Amino acid sequence: MEEYQQSKINRIKRGANRGTYNVEKINVILDAGFLCYVGYIYDSKPITIPMAYARKDNKIYIHGSTGNRMLLSILESKSTSITVMHLDGLVLARSGLHHSVNYRSVTLFGDLKKIENDTDKTDILKRIVNQMVPNQWNSLRPMYKKELDRTLVVEFTIETASAKIRDVGVADEPEDYDLNIWAGVVPIKQIAEYPIADEGKPKSMEIPQHILDYYEKNK
Amino acid sequence: MEEYQQSKINRIKRGANRGTYNVEKINVILDAGFLCYVGYIYDSKPITIPMAYARKDNKIYIHGSTGNRMLLSILESKSTSITVMHLDGLVLARSGLHHSVNYRSVTLFGDLKKIENDTDKTDILKRIVNQMVPNQWNSLRPMYKKELDRTLVVEFTIETASAKIRDVGVADEPEDYDLNIWAGVVPIKQIAEYPIADEGKPKSMEIPQHILDYYEKNK
Repeated sequence: MEEYQQSKINRIKRGANRGTYNVEKINVILDAGFLCYVGYIYDSKPITIPMAYARKDNKIYIHGSTGNRMLLSILESKSTSITVMHLDGLVLARSGLHHSVNYRSVTLFGDLKKIENDTDKTDILKRIVNQMVPNQWNSLRPMYKKELDRTLVVEFTIETASAKIRDVGVADEPEDYDLNIWAGVVPIKQIAEYPIADEGKPKSMEIPQHILDYYEKNK
Repeated sequence: MEEYQQSKINRIKRGANRGTYNVEKINVILDAGFLCYVGYIYDSKPITIPMAYARKDNKIYIHGSTGNRMLLSILESKSTSITVMHLDGLVLARSGLHHSVNYRSVTLFGDLKKIENDTDKTDILKRIVNQMVPNQWNSLRPMYKKELDRTLVVEFTIETASAKIRDVGVADEPEDYDLNIWAGVVPIKQIAEYPIADEGKPKSMEIPQHILDYYEKNK
Protein backbone atom coordinates (compact mmCIF):
# COMPACT_ATOMS: atom_id res chain seq x y z
CA MET A 1 0.00 0.00 0.00
CA GLU A 2 1.39 3.37 -0.98
CA GLU A 3 -1.43 5.59 0.21
CA TYR A 4 -4.00 5.27 2.97
CA GLN A 5 -7.52 5.20 1.63
CA GLN A 6 -9.46 8.42 2.06
CA SER A 7 -12.79 8.44 3.82
CA LYS A 8 -14.76 11.05 5.72
CA ILE A 9 -12.85 10.27 8.92
CA ASN A 10 -9.37 11.08 7.60
CA ARG A 11 -10.00 13.35 4.62
CA ILE A 12 -8.36 16.76 5.04
CA LYS A 13 -10.68 19.63 4.25
CA ARG A 14 -8.89 22.74 5.53
CA GLY A 15 -5.54 23.26 3.82
CA ALA A 16 -5.97 20.17 1.66
CA ASN A 17 -2.94 21.26 -0.38
CA ARG A 18 -0.83 20.50 2.70
CA GLY A 19 -2.35 17.11 3.26
CA THR A 20 -0.96 13.73 2.33
CA TYR A 21 -2.07 10.13 2.68
CA ASN A 22 1.29 8.74 1.60
CA VAL A 23 2.32 5.84 3.84
CA GLU A 24 6.06 6.51 3.58
CA LYS A 25 5.69 10.23 4.35
CA ILE A 26 3.50 9.42 7.34
CA ASN A 27 6.02 6.86 8.60
CA VAL A 28 8.85 9.40 8.35
CA ILE A 29 6.88 11.79 10.57
CA LEU A 30 6.11 9.01 13.05
CA ASP A 31 9.75 7.90 13.18
CA ALA A 32 10.91 11.45 13.93
CA GLY A 33 9.25 11.37 17.37
CA PHE A 34 8.42 9.15 20.30
CA LEU A 35 5.57 11.09 21.93
CA CYS A 36 2.02 10.79 20.66
CA TYR A 37 -1.35 12.14 21.74
CA VAL A 38 -3.92 9.41 22.26
CA GLY A 39 -7.59 10.33 22.24
CA TYR A 40 -10.22 8.54 24.27
CA ILE A 41 -13.75 9.18 25.40
CA TYR A 42 -14.46 9.35 29.11
CA ASP A 43 -17.84 10.30 30.46
CA SER A 44 -18.78 11.35 26.90
CA LYS A 45 -15.86 13.79 26.71
CA PRO A 46 -12.84 13.38 24.42
CA ILE A 47 -9.61 13.44 26.45
CA THR A 48 -6.11 13.51 25.02
CA ILE A 49 -3.27 11.71 26.78
CA PRO A 50 0.39 12.14 25.83
CA MET A 51 2.21 8.78 25.64
CA ALA A 52 5.47 7.30 24.44
CA TYR A 53 5.17 5.09 21.37
CA ALA A 54 7.09 2.96 18.94
CA ARG A 55 6.26 2.22 15.32
CA LYS A 56 6.89 -1.06 13.50
CA ASP A 57 5.47 -1.32 9.99
CA ASN A 58 1.79 -0.34 10.27
CA LYS A 59 1.68 -0.86 14.05
CA ILE A 60 1.96 1.72 16.80
CA TYR A 61 2.74 0.41 20.27
CA ILE A 62 1.85 2.16 23.51
CA HIS A 63 1.96 0.94 27.08
CA GLY A 64 1.09 1.75 30.65
CA SER A 65 0.08 0.25 33.93
CA THR A 66 -2.40 -2.62 33.85
CA GLY A 67 -4.80 -0.25 35.64
CA ASN A 68 -4.43 2.59 33.12
CA ARG A 69 -7.96 3.98 32.68
CA MET A 70 -7.36 5.27 29.17
CA LEU A 71 -5.73 2.12 27.79
CA LEU A 72 -8.41 -0.12 29.27
CA SER A 73 -11.10 2.16 27.90
CA ILE A 74 -9.81 2.24 24.33
CA LEU A 75 -9.18 -1.52 24.32
CA GLU A 76 -12.81 -2.04 25.20
CA SER A 77 -14.41 0.66 23.04
CA LYS A 78 -11.95 0.43 20.10
CA SER A 79 -12.61 4.15 19.88
CA THR A 80 -9.43 6.16 19.65
CA SER A 81 -7.10 8.06 17.36
CA ILE A 82 -3.43 8.94 17.66
CA THR A 83 -1.89 12.30 16.78
CA VAL A 84 1.78 13.17 16.43
CA MET A 85 2.99 16.69 15.72
CA HIS A 86 6.38 18.29 15.27
CA LEU A 87 6.54 22.08 15.42
CA ASP A 88 9.10 23.44 12.96
CA GLY A 89 8.62 27.19 12.86
CA LEU A 90 6.61 30.31 13.57
CA VAL A 91 5.32 31.94 10.40
CA LEU A 92 5.17 35.67 11.10
CA ALA A 93 3.16 37.27 8.32
CA ARG A 94 2.29 40.90 7.59
CA SER A 95 -1.30 40.35 8.72
CA GLY A 96 -2.75 38.52 11.66
CA LEU A 97 -4.81 36.26 9.42
CA HIS A 98 -1.75 34.76 7.74
CA HIS A 99 0.16 33.98 10.91
CA SER A 100 0.77 30.27 10.99
CA VAL A 101 3.24 27.62 12.01
CA ASN A 102 5.37 25.23 10.06
CA TYR A 103 4.80 21.68 11.23
CA ARG A 104 4.50 18.01 10.43
CA SER A 105 1.46 16.31 11.90
CA VAL A 106 -0.14 12.92 11.55
CA THR A 107 -3.49 11.54 12.67
CA LEU A 108 -3.97 7.78 12.77
CA PHE A 109 -7.11 5.67 12.97
CA GLY A 110 -7.12 1.96 13.54
CA ASP A 111 -7.84 -1.10 15.57
CA LEU A 112 -6.49 -2.06 18.98
CA LYS A 113 -5.35 -5.26 20.60
CA LYS A 114 -3.78 -6.18 23.91
CA ILE A 115 -0.46 -8.00 23.65
CA GLU A 116 -0.46 -11.03 25.96
CA ASN A 117 2.72 -12.92 25.15
CA ASP A 118 5.74 -12.04 27.33
CA THR A 119 8.25 -12.35 24.51
CA ASP A 120 6.20 -10.02 22.33
CA LYS A 121 5.66 -7.59 25.22
CA THR A 122 9.39 -7.47 25.93
CA ASP A 123 10.19 -6.90 22.28
CA ILE A 124 7.68 -4.04 22.14
CA LEU A 125 8.94 -2.38 25.32
CA LYS A 126 12.42 -2.57 23.81
CA ARG A 127 11.10 -0.79 20.72
CA ILE A 128 9.45 1.92 22.82
CA VAL A 129 12.65 2.62 24.78
CA ASN A 130 14.72 2.57 21.59
CA GLN A 131 12.31 4.90 19.79
CA MET A 132 13.17 7.46 22.51
CA VAL A 133 16.95 6.87 22.40
CA PRO A 134 18.26 4.44 19.77
CA ASN A 135 20.12 1.41 21.18
CA GLN A 136 19.23 2.26 24.77
CA TRP A 137 17.55 -1.06 25.64
CA ASN A 138 20.61 -3.28 25.40
CA SER A 139 22.43 -1.35 28.13
CA LEU A 140 19.64 -1.96 30.69
CA ARG A 141 19.08 -4.79 33.11
CA PRO A 142 16.54 -7.30 31.77
CA MET A 143 12.90 -6.87 32.76
CA TYR A 144 11.52 -9.02 35.55
CA LYS A 145 8.49 -11.20 34.94
CA LYS A 146 6.61 -9.27 37.65
CA GLU A 147 7.32 -6.01 35.80
CA LEU A 148 5.94 -7.44 32.58
CA ASP A 149 2.89 -8.66 34.49
CA ARG A 150 1.99 -5.17 35.63
CA THR A 151 2.57 -3.60 32.20
CA LEU A 152 -0.22 -3.31 29.68
CA VAL A 153 1.04 -3.29 26.10
CA VAL A 154 -1.32 -2.21 23.36
CA GLU A 155 -0.91 -2.68 19.64
CA PHE A 156 -2.64 -0.16 17.41
CA THR A 157 -2.90 -1.20 13.77
CA ILE A 158 -3.07 1.79 11.46
CA GLU A 159 -6.06 1.36 9.18
CA THR A 160 -6.17 4.83 7.78
CA ALA A 161 -4.29 8.03 8.36
CA SER A 162 -3.51 11.47 7.10
CA ALA A 163 -0.69 13.93 7.52
CA LYS A 164 -0.39 17.66 7.15
CA ILE A 165 2.90 19.34 6.43
CA ARG A 166 3.55 23.06 6.21
CA ASP A 167 7.15 23.84 5.36
CA VAL A 168 7.03 27.03 3.35
CA GLY A 169 7.54 30.70 4.08
CA VAL A 170 5.08 33.51 4.62
CA ALA A 171 1.95 33.57 2.41
CA ASP A 172 0.47 37.06 2.62
CA GLU A 173 -2.24 38.82 0.65
CA PRO A 174 -0.74 40.07 -2.66
CA GLU A 175 -1.27 43.74 -1.80
CA ASP A 176 0.43 43.38 1.60
CA TYR A 177 3.91 42.68 0.21
CA ASP A 178 4.42 46.42 -0.30
CA LEU A 179 3.85 47.23 3.37
CA ASN A 180 6.81 48.19 5.50
CA ILE A 181 6.23 45.30 7.85
CA TRP A 182 8.87 42.72 8.65
CA ALA A 183 7.74 39.18 7.89
CA GLY A 184 9.53 35.88 8.06
CA VAL A 185 9.91 32.53 9.73
CA VAL A 186 11.39 31.78 13.14
CA PRO A 187 12.56 28.16 12.95
CA ILE A 188 11.66 26.08 16.02
CA LYS A 189 13.49 22.94 17.04
CA GLN A 190 13.39 20.46 19.86
CA ILE A 191 16.91 19.92 21.11
CA ALA A 192 18.74 17.83 23.69
CA GLU A 193 21.13 19.29 26.22
CA TYR A 194 24.15 17.47 27.62
CA PRO A 195 23.17 14.35 29.62
CA ILE A 196 23.16 14.74 33.41
CA ALA A 197 24.37 11.63 35.25
CA ASP A 198 22.33 10.25 38.12
CA GLU A 199 23.80 10.32 41.64
CA GLY A 200 26.03 7.39 42.55
CA LYS A 201 27.91 5.23 40.08
CA PRO A 202 26.90 7.09 36.89
CA LYS A 203 28.72 10.22 38.17
CA SER A 204 32.03 8.40 37.74
CA MET A 205 31.08 6.39 34.64
CA GLU A 206 31.55 7.43 31.06
CA ILE A 207 28.33 8.34 29.31
CA PRO A 208 27.58 5.46 26.91
CA GLN A 209 28.38 6.13 23.27
CA HIS A 210 24.78 5.67 22.08
CA ILE A 211 23.60 8.38 24.50
CA LEU A 212 26.37 10.74 23.38
CA ASP A 213 25.36 9.95 19.80
CA TYR A 214 21.78 10.92 20.64
CA TYR A 215 22.99 14.16 22.17
CA GLU A 216 25.23 15.00 19.21
CA LYS A 217 22.43 14.33 16.76
CA ASN A 218 19.87 16.40 18.69
CA LYS A 219 21.86 19.16 20.39
CA MET B 1 -10.26 30.15 43.54
CA GLU B 2 -6.90 28.63 44.36
CA GLU B 3 -7.53 25.06 43.30
CA TYR B 4 -9.80 23.49 40.72
CA GLN B 5 -12.31 21.18 42.27
CA GLN B 6 -11.61 17.49 41.89
CA SER B 7 -14.15 15.17 40.35
CA LYS B 8 -13.94 11.88 38.50
CA ILE B 9 -13.25 13.66 35.20
CA ASN B 10 -10.06 15.46 36.29
CA ARG B 11 -8.81 13.44 39.25
CA ILE B 12 -5.33 12.04 38.66
CA LYS B 13 -5.03 8.35 39.49
CA ARG B 14 -1.69 7.29 38.02
CA GLY B 15 1.23 9.19 39.52
CA ALA B 16 -1.05 11.22 41.78
CA ASN B 17 2.04 12.52 43.62
CA ARG B 18 2.89 14.45 40.43
CA GLY B 19 -0.56 15.89 40.04
CA THR B 20 -1.78 19.35 40.97
CA TYR B 21 -5.06 21.22 40.76
CA ASN B 22 -3.48 24.55 41.69
CA VAL B 23 -4.82 27.33 39.44
CA GLU B 24 -1.61 29.37 39.45
CA LYS B 25 0.60 26.37 38.62
CA ILE B 26 -1.74 25.41 35.80
CA ASN B 27 -1.71 28.98 34.44
CA VAL B 28 2.10 29.03 34.46
CA ILE B 29 2.15 25.87 32.31
CA LEU B 30 -0.46 27.36 29.95
CA ASP B 31 1.45 30.62 29.62
CA ALA B 32 4.66 28.79 28.71
CA GLY B 33 3.18 27.65 25.39
CA PHE B 34 0.88 28.63 22.56
CA LEU B 35 0.01 25.24 21.07
CA CYS B 36 -2.72 23.08 22.56
CA TYR B 37 -4.34 19.78 21.65
CA VAL B 38 -8.09 20.03 21.36
CA GLY B 39 -10.17 16.86 21.57
CA TYR B 40 -13.43 16.35 19.75
CA ILE B 41 -15.65 13.46 18.84
CA TYR B 42 -16.28 12.76 15.17
CA ASP B 43 -18.22 9.73 14.00
CA SER B 44 -17.95 8.42 17.60
CA LYS B 45 -14.14 8.62 17.55
CA PRO B 46 -12.07 11.02 19.67
CA ILE B 47 -9.80 13.10 17.44
CA THR B 48 -7.08 15.45 18.65
CA ILE B 49 -6.35 18.66 16.75
CA PRO B 50 -3.31 20.87 17.47
CA MET B 51 -4.26 24.56 17.62
CA ALA B 52 -2.80 27.90 18.67
CA TYR B 53 -4.32 29.38 21.80
CA ALA B 54 -4.20 32.31 24.15
CA ARG B 55 -5.09 32.38 27.83
CA LYS B 56 -6.72 35.27 29.68
CA ASP B 57 -7.73 34.58 33.28
CA ASN B 58 -9.79 31.35 33.21
CA LYS B 59 -10.46 31.58 29.45
CA ILE B 60 -8.67 29.80 26.63
CA TYR B 61 -9.21 31.20 23.15
CA ILE B 62 -8.88 29.23 19.94
CA HIS B 63 -9.84 30.13 16.40
CA GLY B 64 -10.16 28.86 12.88
CA SER B 65 -12.11 29.19 9.69
CA THR B 66 -15.88 29.61 10.01
CA GLY B 67 -16.12 26.22 8.30
CA ASN B 68 -13.78 24.44 10.73
CA ARG B 69 -15.38 21.04 11.36
CA MET B 70 -13.86 20.59 14.78
CA LEU B 71 -14.72 24.04 16.13
CA LEU B 72 -18.30 23.82 14.87
CA SER B 73 -18.64 20.36 16.35
CA ILE B 74 -17.42 21.27 19.84
CA LEU B 75 -19.49 24.45 19.89
CA GLU B 76 -22.55 22.35 19.26
CA SER B 77 -21.78 19.33 21.44
CA LYS B 78 -19.93 21.22 24.22
CA SER B 79 -17.89 18.06 24.40
CA THR B 80 -14.18 18.74 24.39
CA SER B 81 -11.04 18.98 26.47
CA ILE B 82 -7.78 20.80 25.93
CA THR B 83 -4.32 19.40 26.63
CA VAL B 84 -1.02 21.27 26.74
CA MET B 85 2.30 19.52 27.29
CA HIS B 86 5.90 20.66 27.50
CA LEU B 87 8.56 17.97 27.24
CA ASP B 88 11.51 18.77 29.50
CA GLY B 89 13.71 15.70 29.53
CA LEU B 90 14.31 12.03 28.87
CA VAL B 91 14.67 10.03 32.07
CA LEU B 92 17.04 7.16 31.30
CA ALA B 93 16.81 4.69 34.15
CA ARG B 94 18.69 1.46 34.86
CA SER B 95 15.62 -0.60 33.96
CA GLY B 96 13.12 -0.32 31.15
CA LEU B 97 10.23 0.01 33.58
CA HIS B 98 11.56 3.23 35.09
CA HIS B 99 12.23 5.01 31.84
CA SER B 100 10.17 8.15 31.82
CA VAL B 101 10.11 11.75 30.72
CA ASN B 102 10.17 15.01 32.59
CA TYR B 103 7.28 17.18 31.52
CA ARG B 104 4.61 19.70 32.45
CA SER B 105 1.14 18.85 31.20
CA VAL B 106 -2.31 20.26 31.74
CA THR B 107 -5.76 18.97 30.86
CA LEU B 108 -8.66 21.42 30.87
CA PHE B 109 -12.41 20.83 30.92
CA GLY B 110 -14.97 23.55 30.44
CA ASP B 111 -17.69 25.27 28.53
CA LEU B 112 -17.56 26.81 25.07
CA LYS B 113 -18.99 29.88 23.46
CA LYS B 114 -18.67 31.54 20.08
CA ILE B 115 -17.47 35.14 20.19
CA GLU B 116 -19.64 37.31 17.94
CA ASN B 117 -18.56 40.88 18.60
CA ASP B 118 -15.88 42.22 16.22
CA THR B 119 -14.07 44.22 18.89
CA ASP B 120 -13.85 41.17 21.13
CA LYS B 121 -12.80 38.97 18.22
CA THR B 122 -10.03 41.37 17.29
CA ASP B 123 -8.82 41.59 20.86
CA ILE B 124 -8.71 37.79 21.09
CA LEU B 125 -6.87 37.35 17.79
CA LYS B 126 -4.34 39.88 19.10
CA ARG B 127 -3.91 37.76 22.21
CA ILE B 128 -3.43 34.59 20.16
CA VAL B 129 -0.73 36.20 17.99
CA ASN B 130 0.96 37.71 21.04
CA GLN B 131 0.89 34.41 22.93
CA MET B 132 3.06 33.05 20.09
CA VAL B 133 5.45 36.04 19.98
CA PRO B 134 4.93 38.78 22.59
CA ASN B 135 4.15 42.23 21.13
CA GLN B 136 3.85 40.91 17.59
CA TRP B 137 0.31 42.19 16.91
CA ASN B 138 1.06 45.91 17.02
CA SER B 139 3.53 45.65 14.14
CA LEU B 140 0.94 44.15 11.77
CA ARG B 141 -1.54 45.79 9.45
CA PRO B 142 -5.02 45.95 11.02
CA MET B 143 -7.46 43.14 10.24
CA TYR B 144 -10.10 43.72 7.60
CA LYS B 145 -13.76 43.29 8.43
CA LYS B 146 -13.99 40.53 5.80
CA GLU B 147 -11.17 38.67 7.53
CA LEU B 148 -12.94 38.86 10.87
CA ASP B 149 -16.12 37.64 9.18
CA ARG B 150 -14.47 34.44 8.01
CA THR B 151 -12.79 33.76 11.35
CA LEU B 152 -14.47 31.71 14.04
CA VAL B 153 -13.31 32.64 17.53
CA VAL B 154 -14.15 30.31 20.38
CA GLU B 155 -13.93 31.03 24.08
CA PHE B 156 -13.34 28.05 26.35
CA THR B 157 -14.03 28.72 30.03
CA ILE B 158 -11.98 26.47 32.27
CA GLU B 159 -14.33 24.80 34.74
CA THR B 160 -11.97 22.22 36.06
CA ALA B 161 -8.45 21.14 35.28
CA SER B 162 -5.48 19.14 36.41
CA ALA B 163 -1.77 19.25 35.77
CA LYS B 164 1.01 16.73 36.01
CA ILE B 165 4.60 17.74 36.50
CA ARG B 166 7.61 15.45 36.59
CA ASP B 167 10.83 17.35 37.21
CA VAL B 168 13.04 14.97 39.14
CA GLY B 169 15.86 12.59 38.29
CA VAL B 170 15.92 8.85 37.82
CA ALA B 171 13.82 6.75 40.22
CA ASP B 172 15.07 3.18 40.01
CA GLU B 173 14.40 0.08 42.10
CA PRO B 174 16.54 0.25 45.28
CA GLU B 175 18.59 -2.82 44.36
CA ASP B 176 19.38 -1.49 40.88
CA TYR B 177 21.54 1.42 42.07
CA ASP B 178 24.48 -0.98 42.46
CA LEU B 179 24.39 -2.05 38.82
CA ASN B 180 27.09 -0.80 36.48
CA ILE B 181 24.55 0.88 34.24
CA TRP B 182 24.69 4.54 33.35
CA ALA B 183 21.52 6.40 34.26
CA GLY B 184 20.57 10.04 34.07
CA VAL B 185 18.47 12.71 32.45
CA VAL B 186 18.84 14.19 28.97
CA PRO B 187 17.25 17.65 29.18
CA ILE B 188 15.00 18.49 26.23
CA LYS B 189 14.13 22.02 25.17
CA GLN B 190 12.21 23.71 22.42
CA ILE B 191 14.35 26.47 20.97
CA ALA B 192 14.11 29.18 18.33
CA GLU B 193 16.70 29.65 15.62
CA TYR B 194 17.59 33.00 14.08
CA PRO B 195 14.64 34.58 12.23
CA ILE B 196 14.66 34.20 8.43
CA ALA B 197 13.33 37.26 6.59
CA ASP B 198 10.70 36.81 3.88
CA GLU B 199 11.61 37.67 0.28
CA GLY B 200 11.20 41.33 -0.69
CA LYS B 201 11.27 44.24 1.70
CA PRO B 202 11.99 42.27 4.90
CA LYS B 203 15.36 41.17 3.45
CA SER B 204 16.59 44.76 3.71
CA MET B 205 14.73 45.66 6.91
CA GLU B 206 16.01 45.31 10.43
CA ILE B 207 14.37 42.51 12.36
CA PRO B 208 12.01 44.17 14.87
CA GLN B 209 13.27 44.30 18.44
CA HIS B 210 10.40 42.24 19.85
CA ILE B 211 11.22 39.39 17.45
CA LEU B 212 14.92 39.57 18.34
CA ASP B 213 13.85 39.54 22.00
CA TYR B 214 11.84 36.38 21.35
CA TYR B 215 14.84 34.78 19.67
CA GLU B 216 17.23 35.77 22.47
CA LYS B 217 14.88 34.41 25.09
CA ASN B 218 14.28 31.11 23.29
CA LYS B 219 17.51 30.39 21.42
